[in-house]
Amino acid sequence: MEIRKQLALHLRQYTEVPEQELPSVLAYFRPITVAKKANLLEAGQVCRHHYFVGKGCLRMFFVNEKGNEQTVQFAIENWWLTDHLSFSTQQKTDFFIQAVERSEILAIEFNAQEPMFQAHPCMERYFRRMYEIAYRVSQQGMKVRYNLSGEDLYLHFINAFPGFANRIPQYLLASYLGITPEYLSEIKKKLRIGSREG
Amino acid sequence: MEIRKQLALHLRQYTEVPEQELPSVLAYFRPITVAKKANLLEAGQVCRHHYFVGKGCLRMFFVNEKGNEQTVQFAIENWWLTDHLSFSTQQKTDFFIQAVERSEILAIEFNAQEPMFQAHPCMERYFRRMYEIAYRVSQQGMKVRYNLSGEDLYLHFINAFPGFANRIPQYLLASYLGITPEYLSEIKKKLRIGSREG
Repeated sequence: MEIRKQLALHLRQYTEVPEQELPSVLAYFRPITVAKKANLLEAGQVCRHHYFVGKGCLRMFFVNEKGNEQTVQFAIENWWLTDHLSFSTQQKTDFFIQAVERSEILAIEFNAQEPMFQAHPCMERYFRRMYEIAYRVSQQGMKVRYNLSGEDLYLHFINAFPGFANRIPQYLLASYLGITPEYLSEIKKKLRIGSREG
Repeated sequence: MEIRKQLALHLRQYTEVPEQELPSVLAYFRPITVAKKANLLEAGQVCRHHYFVGKGCLRMFFVNEKGNEQTVQFAIENWWLTDHLSFSTQQKTDFFIQAVERSEILAIEFNAQEPMFQAHPCMERYFRRMYEIAYRVSQQGMKVRYNLSGEDLYLHFINAFPGFANRIPQYLLASYLGITPEYLSEIKKKLRIGSREG
């Protein structure tokens, strides 16, 4: 499916876009194909885009004080991703946004966002609901991270996002869960044994 | 200041509310005075309100597997707070929302939200921006929590929210930072010594 059509379907799940407005709305979003491991954003740059994933997978990470990449978010089909601090203030970011797989995405520029909202109030509703969902997921994530052990965190993740855990490199998943790749592989081994015995 | 006036000022920082719509908009929000330590929401209930803090301070917490209260969020003047999962799905919550101080708040009911958005599109813009900011803060929080030691987390917190750290009970602040009250008091002692020597 053409990626703008995919966005149009997604818009219509969350807001009413008048038929005559749709072409103008979609024109704000520019399709980009991004190669596996290519960076859309690098630390020190200003984040100028908000990204919608049509196909593939993006991740956002920073380089921590030990020099390791720490993944803080993934975005798959029909998810939005940006560094909201850098995007909304147009100040330099500490984050990288990278394609985990070859990905087809749409990008809207910071400067295009306000004209779009002014011309198309239906998009206020769409993004109100997108941010609400993103924030809801993040609130639940906080609870999970405070409360769960590495093993339970992994179980929560594979239940919350079925199929996704096997799709991404396991060292990235471990980093996201805040555990070592070795510990993740121990957990998976233990769970496999558990499910065979159970 | 009357709390609805305070909300009106806040609305106008983020959206244009036509003068003739304002009374109708404000009528969706019901003032509540809540005593210190009173619960607005308890685990097992459905979260029916989204709260705006006019004066005072609310916190959201859950009881973790060890039986301890784990604070995940605070809300002070001009902040919004709810459990978005329970609020938007109208399913039972795992969270408590409690007044840290005697607080004056406004509450909008779940059932009133959609009629308000339909009647007043300016409120879509307002909440789009509120959620965007909340999500931005949460994204930065993720980075901070992955990266910082207890001491740096405390320094980050007192810089990001000046004056706030001294206002709330220190055991709540420690819980929010994910450290013990004893460790927090060690950190503060060390920083006081550091600043005297520095």
